[in-house]
Amino acid sequence: MCGIVGIFARSNVNQTIFDALTVLQHRGQDAAGMVTCEGDRFFMRKDNGLVNEVFRTRHMKRLMGNMGIGHVRYPTAGSSSSAEAQPFYVNSPYGIALAHNGNLTNAEALADDIFRADLRHINTTSDSEVLLNVFAHELQRIGKLTPTAVDMFKAVEEVHKRCQGGYAVVAMITGYGVLAFRDPYGIRPLVYGKRVVDGKVEYMVASESVALDTSGFERVRDLVPGEALYIDNEGQLFLQQCAAQQTLAPCLFEYVYLARPDSIIENISVHSSRMLMGVKLADKIKKERPDHDIDVVIPIPDTSRTAALEMAHALGVTFREGFIKNRYIGRTFIMPGQTLRKKSVRQKLNPIASEFKDKVVMLVDDSIVRGTTSKQIVQMAREAGARKVYFASAAPEVRFPNVYGIDMPSATELVAHGRSAEDVGNYIGCDWMLYQDLDDLKACITELNSDIKEFDTCVFDGKYVTGSVNAEYLQKLESKRNDDAKTMADSDSDAEEDESADLHTRIN
Amino acid sequence: MCGIVGIFARSNVNQTIFDALTVLQHRGQDAAGMVTCEGDRFFMRKDNGLVNEVFRTRHMKRLMGNMGIGHVRYPTAGSSSSAEAQPFYVNSPYGIALAHNGNLTNAEALADDIFRADLRHINTTSDSEVLLNVFAHELQRIGKLTPTAVDMFKAVEEVHKRCQGGYAVVAMITGYGVLAFRDPYGIRPLVYGKRVVDGKVEYMVASESVALDTSGFERVRDLVPGEALYIDNEGQLFLQQCAAQQTLAPCLFEYVYLARPDSIIENISVHSSRMLMGVKLADKIKKERPDHDIDVVIPIPDTSRTAALEMAHALGVTFREGFIKNRYIGRTFIMPGQTLRKKSVRQKLNPIASEFKDKVVMLVDDSIVRGTTSKQIVQMAREAGARKVYFASAAPEVRFPNVYGIDMPSATELVAHGRSAEDVGNYIGCDWMLYQDLDDLKACITELNSDIKEFDTCVFDGKYVTGSVNAEYLQKLESKRNDDAKTMADSDSDAEEDESADLHTRIN
Amino acid sequence: MCGIVGIFARSNVNQTIFDALTVLQHRGQDAAGMVTCEGDRFFMRKDNGLVNEVFRTRHMKRLMGNMGIGHVRYPTAGSSSSAEAQPFYVNSPYGIALAHNGNLTNAEALADDIFRADLRHINTTSDSEVLLNVFAHELQRIGKLTPTAVDMFKAVEEVHKRCQGGYAVVAMITGYGVLAFRDPYGIRPLVYGKRVVDGKVEYMVASESVALDTSGFERVRDLVPGEALYIDNEGQLFLQQCAAQQTLAPCLFEYVYLARPDSIIENISVHSSRMLMGVKLADKIKKERPDHDIDVVIPIPDTSRTAALEMAHALGVTFREGFIKNRYIGRTFIMPGQTLRKKSVRQKLNPIASEFKDKVVMLVDDSIVRGTTSKQIVQMAREAGARKVYFASAAPEVRFPNVYGIDMPSATELVAHGRSAEDVGNYIGCDWMLYQDLDDLKACITELNSDIKEFDTCVFDGKYVTGSVNAEYLQKLESKRNDDAKTMADSDSDAEEDESADLHTRIN
Amino acid sequence: MCGIVGIFARSNVNQTIFDALTVLQHRGQDAAGMVTCEGDRFFMRKDNGLVNEVFRTRHMKRLMGNMGIGHVRYPTAGSSSSAEAQPFYVNSPYGIALAHNGNLTNAEALADDIFRADLRHINTTSDSEVLLNVFAHELQRIGKLTPTAVDMFKAVEEVHKRCQGGYAVVAMITGYGVLAFRDPYGIRPLVYGKRVVDGKVEYMVASESVALDTSGFERVRDLVPGEALYIDNEGQLFLQQCAAQQTLAPCLFEYVYLARPDSIIENISVHSSRMLMGVKLADKIKKERPDHDIDVVIPIPDTSRTAALEMAHALGVTFREGFIKNRYIGRTFIMPGQTLRKKSVRQKLNPIASEFKDKVVMLVDDSIVRGTTSKQIVQMAREAGARKVYFASAAPEVRFPNVYGIDMPSATELVAHGRSAEDVGNYIGCDWMLYQDLDDLKACITELNSDIKEFDTCVFDGKYVTGSVNAEYLQKLESKRNDDAKTMADSDSDAEEDESADLHTRIN
Repeated sequence: MCGIVGIFARSNVNQTIFDALTVLQHRGQDAAGMVTCEGDRFFMRKDNGLVNEVFRTRHMKRLMGNMGIGHVRYPTAGSSSSAEAQPFYVNSPYGIALAHNGNLTNAEALADDIFRADLRHINTTSDSEVLLNVFAHELQRIGKLTPTAVDMFKAVEEVHKRCQGGYAVVAMITGYGVLAFRDPYGIRPLVYGKRVVDGKVEYMVASESVALDTSGFERVRDLVPGEALYIDNEGQLFLQQCAAQQTLAPCLFEYVYLARPDSIIENISVHSSRMLMGVKLADKIKKERPDHDIDVVIPIPDTSRTAALEMAHALGVTFREGFIKNRYIGRTFIMPGQTLRKKSVRQKLNPIASEFKDKVVMLVDDSIVRGTTSKQIVQMAREAGARKVYFASAAPEVRFPNVYGIDMPSATELVAHGRSAEDVGNYIGCDWMLYQDLDDLKACITELNSDIKEFDTCVFDGKYVTGSVNAEYLQKLESKRNDDAKTMADSDSDAEEDESADLHTRIN
Repeated sequence: MCGIVGIFARSNVNQTIFDALTVLQHRGQDAAGMVTCEGDRFFMRKDNGLVNEVFRTRHMKRLMGNMGIGHVRYPTAGSSSSAEAQPFYVNSPYGIALAHNGNLTNAEALADDIFRADLRHINTTSDSEVLLNVFAHELQRIGKLTPTAVDMFKAVEEVHKRCQGGYAVVAMITGYGVLAFRDPYGIRPLVYGKRVVDGKVEYMVASESVALDTSGFERVRDLVPGEALYIDNEGQLFLQQCAAQQTLAPCLFEYVYLARPDSIIENISVHSSRMLMGVKLADKIKKERPDHDIDVVIPIPDTSRTAALEMAHALGVTFREGFIKNRYIGRTFIMPGQTLRKKSVRQKLNPIASEFKDKVVMLVDDSIVRGTTSKQIVQMAREAGARKVYFASAAPEVRFPNVYGIDMPSATELVAHGRSAEDVGNYIGCDWMLYQDLDDLKACITELNSDIKEFDTCVFDGKYVTGSVNAEYLQKLESKRNDDAKTMADSDSDAEEDESADLHTRIN
Repeated sequence: MCGIVGIFARSNVNQTIFDALTVLQHRGQDAAGMVTCEGDRFFMRKDNGLVNEVFRTRHMKRLMGNMGIGHVRYPTAGSSSSAEAQPFYVNSPYGIALAHNGNLTNAEALADDIFRADLRHINTTSDSEVLLNVFAHELQRIGKLTPTAVDMFKAVEEVHKRCQGGYAVVAMITGYGVLAFRDPYGIRPLVYGKRVVDGKVEYMVASESVALDTSGFERVRDLVPGEALYIDNEGQLFLQQCAAQQTLAPCLFEYVYLARPDSIIENISVHSSRMLMGVKLADKIKKERPDHDIDVVIPIPDTSRTAALEMAHALGVTFREGFIKNRYIGRTFIMPGQTLRKKSVRQKLNPIASEFKDKVVMLVDDSIVRGTTSKQIVQMAREAGARKVYFASAAPEVRFPNVYGIDMPSATELVAHGRSAEDVGNYIGCDWMLYQDLDDLKACITELNSDIKEFDTCVFDGKYVTGSVNAEYLQKLESKRNDDAKTMADSDSDAEEDESADLHTRIN
Repeated sequence: MCGIVGIFARSNVNQTIFDALTVLQHRGQDAAGMVTCEGDRFFMRKDNGLVNEVFRTRHMKRLMGNMGIGHVRYPTAGSSSSAEAQPFYVNSPYGIALAHNGNLTNAEALADDIFRADLRHINTTSDSEVLLNVFAHELQRIGKLTPTAVDMFKAVEEVHKRCQGGYAVVAMITGYGVLAFRDPYGIRPLVYGKRVVDGKVEYMVASESVALDTSGFERVRDLVPGEALYIDNEGQLFLQQCAAQQTLAPCLFEYVYLARPDSIIENISVHSSRMLMGVKLADKIKKERPDHDIDVVIPIPDTSRTAALEMAHALGVTFREGFIKNRYIGRTFIMPGQTLRKKSVRQKLNPIASEFKDKVVMLVDDSIVRGTTSKQIVQMAREAGARKVYFASAAPEVRFPNVYGIDMPSATELVAHGRSAEDVGNYIGCDWMLYQDLDDLKACITELNSDIKEFDTCVFDGKYVTGSVNAEYLQKLESKRNDDAKTMADSDSDAEEDESADLHTRIN
């Protein structure tokens, strides 16, 4: 997962991009990047680290110009080097910088194609570099000395034809304008807004509407699936549908966990959808165990708080904060002659004993992935004196890999992969394991916006809406993720020697 | 405000001190320091920055030894340079390092005295340096080649006689042991615990019990006012009352705001006391406005959440999360030719409109200091569509300066200084301003531990329990704080040029 | 001026490139860069700073692969940003990195052309970026999926047709090989060598032969003007003349000042040529003033030492070291409220009084550019007690701008521009000003290698061998250099705020 | 070996101390430090690194005040950590900072004494910390609230009584003044000078007169052995002999190698003394081999150049530069899975073949320590084609450890330890090994200043002028140096991993 932003303004955009990336930081704490354009020159800065680590005064001074794009990257296995920080850049045609949120499922084949067609070299394993080169290739084929919105949209059309997967993209064409587009299924979110400064309109496009809010942009609307937006260097806005056919099938996980609750995605308040998740869970409890003995509902902070609170309301049960999250996460140093000690969940989450003592507690989390953290949390609840520990997940069982830009462990590492809810409950050690039903989760969205008919539900049911994902691809992914996990473990110990690695372990 | 920790273990303590300081980071994000001792050598590292910025692998490798002390500093006006990071050190007698949380109200006079007595030079404006030198002076007077617990306690006795104010102290005597002591009024908290590793006892003393929890130490108890604790280099624990007379008068603000909710101070769960604060506020509402029209109770995250939730429970009113806190705070860059733009509260706190729209909202905060943030919050609530905006403070009116270690603006900057609750309400623009009564706040503590009879309530009523604070001192403080504010403003713009300054603007 | 290196080896080349760049550091202390290639991936690191500042362990670890190129940059007005550090890179075709030493006199026109032809964007003012794109364009036109030496040479042929100026180039084609070529006039030097490691041949190409010496490569020969060298990814060496016609016209300044004395350029020992410069000067003295009263010959260290020593030998006059060069150059800090103080030459050069006292001294320098330093040196000699001060320059009067890669002040800043030798002598305050005659200087080279018939003598006589330099170009250059000088002055004060700028003032 | 400086001026001294340390950098490139004093506050900055690495703009801004002291440290085995960078500081009495050049031979005993007397803790193995505490102890015994020059001198007297060894010291007493003193044998140099700025006198005291020259101070004279100099905070200069008896016995190695040639030590130009060393060597050649077949005299740059030139003059033989020194020294990186490769001398020194080819060369170096470098140089000369290689050392055989502040390998590592000149010649592989006679070396000094009767000649003859050095001490030194060598080797490889070993900002 990543966060992206693109801005066309009337004065320097570096500070506003910085601010927007800071607000989108929850979508990626691994790397940050920005490209701005002044006249026919662009300026780039990207590196591993948080936004306020990557951009210092000396960089900001160089990031001149009234249009630009930015990116924050989630730490994904296998692409964690600073060389793979986004945006990427090619110098022909025009000089194009591009950043995206999502994943292409046919990146390897595309990389081969564009080498054959254009001799374009892809130097990283990043699919962003592939996407950029596909787009660049298409724009070069058009070959205008002075490209217009029409040319941009034509190139995006071709991109949609060739690229499979989920992608929300911002790009900047040096000297010409800022472009943004969204895949034909609208899997990853993309929203735009405007503000008027000194009588002139300025535009921002971003992954989430909170980025608009905090910089004073008024949200206009989400881009629709397949749509592209272009602002030329005079500030003229162009919008066009570039996909032959489109179906809105947004990622359910944005609502469950990824997005900030104060964001509006597809005209739905994420906060409201999470409230509904709590209500639906309560309904399921009432149905399954009308005589439940729950004394208190306790969220695992922070995401699940909204759902847990509404579950408690709906059940008429007390809601309490039982875990305190440590906002300052440390690190473990390898001393000479020592091996790395494992950090316990305890250093991230501390229970308040009085809220557990002799009580039947219902813990609520947004979702369960590997199950290892949940297991430790259940254990902590018991040690704090809970009589019984129940565990509810606002999302259904996560059983399949995500291929549209959310970095997840390989299928075999998912605790619910091949396990029933009861089995998961046994694994994590709770007395009752309660999962949201997938239809209920969908209803949390459709009740708020009945125009949405489909979803990307792949992690829950293994159905891949883009139709391009076959068993072979998934198998490859599985091995790659296993390999990368190993590589990452290695490079972790490496990181101990590398000064800059110190900066990466962060608050979450 | 600051956080302190001291550890005696059987193997290297650097990682455990690092962990403890991370958990205490909420008590100070401005600077961090650590001193460890191996054999007859000590090792020190301190600098401005967060714990995980100040300590890197290369520093940790040098911080060898099985005993040590650590400190995190709150950014206080007038002592923000890295030269004033704690612990401080003197080489005679023995080599002593010391760090504290609190404030001496007679530091200037003491500095003069110890210069006269010993020609000891105080190079900073930090009262920690003074406290250290007073202690060192007393220990030197005893003059043993091999000092024992008895000598330590004797010196602490003299410190208590000479030093006025609130102070919780950790110190390390190179080659000899770790010492901790608490002022005779117990204003600032200090707790100790132990754990057994490989059959041997290890001790930790810290500002808050959460530091014990997360490193597997079992809380034993708070030090009582005036008490000192010493662990010699063989691991023997000594405890002794070192004050002629003592009165427990803990700082109320620890419960209101400073401490983590999962800490236990004076056998009271901070979390429980905050729950009571919400109940008491609800009682006051029921008394004052039995027919109130509150639709929803909304906390200003994060501290006030506990009180707000219980207030809502007690009133039978809906509780909702209405503001989302941005966990990643950015910074504003001064570009050439620009002046610094002011950041709005909006970048720290974003409202969820649906929770405000057409509702009568009761906002709850832990306390109100300057009132400027509250004012913007009320404004945001209105813009989000609230019909009426009420504002409750879990603490009474803050009207007087704190002189025991909490850095507050000068009295004239406090919004409630010379203003009634109603006046404050008018200032911040709410429709109803509700403050906790001081007696109710005290009751939130005493109902949980009836042994406590007195409190440091100075910020609320201007009564200074140590008896050492006169009008002249307060006047001096007032001018100093005004001056420092100006100096800080200056050095802020300076900071733009200084690379390292980039690190200081942080998440809170 | 710059230094370049390219290596094909059988194991990692990063350390050898590092070593070679260190040995070439005298050709540029402003920025350094390296690109290596492993399989079909390249790795790049470049930044402002000295070689041992730019490459740290963490960078070296990533610079994997058995072929690569490197560059050190001289601080030139107008291209001092880290964004303009070399090598440059384009991703199509193949992924090509390129670095060069020299200057293109038709860079602007070329930039326009390649934009028109290919829509290739040039983002900097660096002519290296232009040269790279011209080469890339030509290689793309050939369009092979698997390019061979033949294709490389064909593309170089086209480059020679289109590019005007002096250039020695190294390039790497990702996954395919290392390429080097030299302009058709051989203005800038380029030499190659080989070594056998474990029975396999490895190649290095570099600006100067010293880079070969210190890494154990045996010098084979200079590339001839217009020639290209290519080593494919199997280690096969190819050499081919790629220019329609060629004339060797090497830059005289390499011998006078730029190259290290232990280098061999065009089969001439630079050291030997400098010895001859001293002999020729002595001849001129004997001719002009057969009864000269010179007591002692004193070099301005370090370059002129060789010439001065031989001058003394030839005259039968004592040679003495009279100036000590400070190897550690400091910097001047701007304190708040102060303006920058000017550093005197004294901090770089300190006289030994006893060598001047009551003597007639002949000072010898390699050349005189602005004359300001010479003036201060003459003044120091007088203050040290010299009876008379004579000044000899091993090079003739420098009167015209260099357009082939040596950064010089604009013509109007050259002390000899429009001044006779006598006038210059008056300006710098010496009692006798002696310049080498241009024909004598040429003879210092031709006597050692009679094959050389022509030279680039432009700075002395304003004759530009490439024929492409007209008055308009020179006028443009003049204004640009004046402008850049101003900009540099500005950015200097800027540098005070920029941490990294601290690193640039260095030993020379 | 180290360099020291102390300044009293009328405005900020930070820049002047920076400049002086830069000029003294040849005396120590390992660490640098500065302490300044403004009013009753001092400011300190010290760290490992070169002067221009340790002091950045942000540090300089804090180093306020019109008096201060500075230090550059030579990398000595066993005290290379940044914690042992000088100056050192104690806060009682008054706050004293001190830095020195030299070595105490009774440091361990003194450390014990001052602990017993004052309980003063010495935290490092640095004898500077010991010296500071001895001085502080003596000044504290006097115990004045406002100490005067008389008190300073009294304390220095006591220091002279207690401390054995060679030491040149600068100290600053916070708020009171700058002090400097020299041991009773005058082993290490110390000179002072003055300048008038705006009608007021300013003083500098420094290790070498070049520091005075470059900042516009006029050299007054060397401090005589045992003498102390004090400038109080009003700028009044006091000078006094503080040793009961004194004998001037300066270190011969300052003239041979340590000092810059443009320095004046004991009224002797170092340059002139080195010229004489060449003359004496020529005399010895003429005596030993009147029919020598030397074709050319070649110096090993840079120090021996002066002697070599005069040797050639005296012999009537050609002098030539045959080796080029690489001014930019690189580093060797340890790549994963590799062991450290050894750098050859070749990377520091490159021969010019034409100067050796078929010639009988006399190489001249200032001295020979381990002999390993000399061996490689002889080898290079032979490979470059020399017919015969002779080797002359301007200093006699180095056979014994130095205990007065020059860091040398242990005796057993010295090539001449237990070897005759001929044996050394065999070891390094030359055809004739020529050492200066010790009496001749002394004569090089006494002929220039007949007042000097004695010298510290310990490295040549094992005679320790201070009389305090016995076999046991030397034995201890031997083992320590062997141990440290091992430790250093270890920490070297460590340093390879620690990126910022170069950069460390450390507070103390």
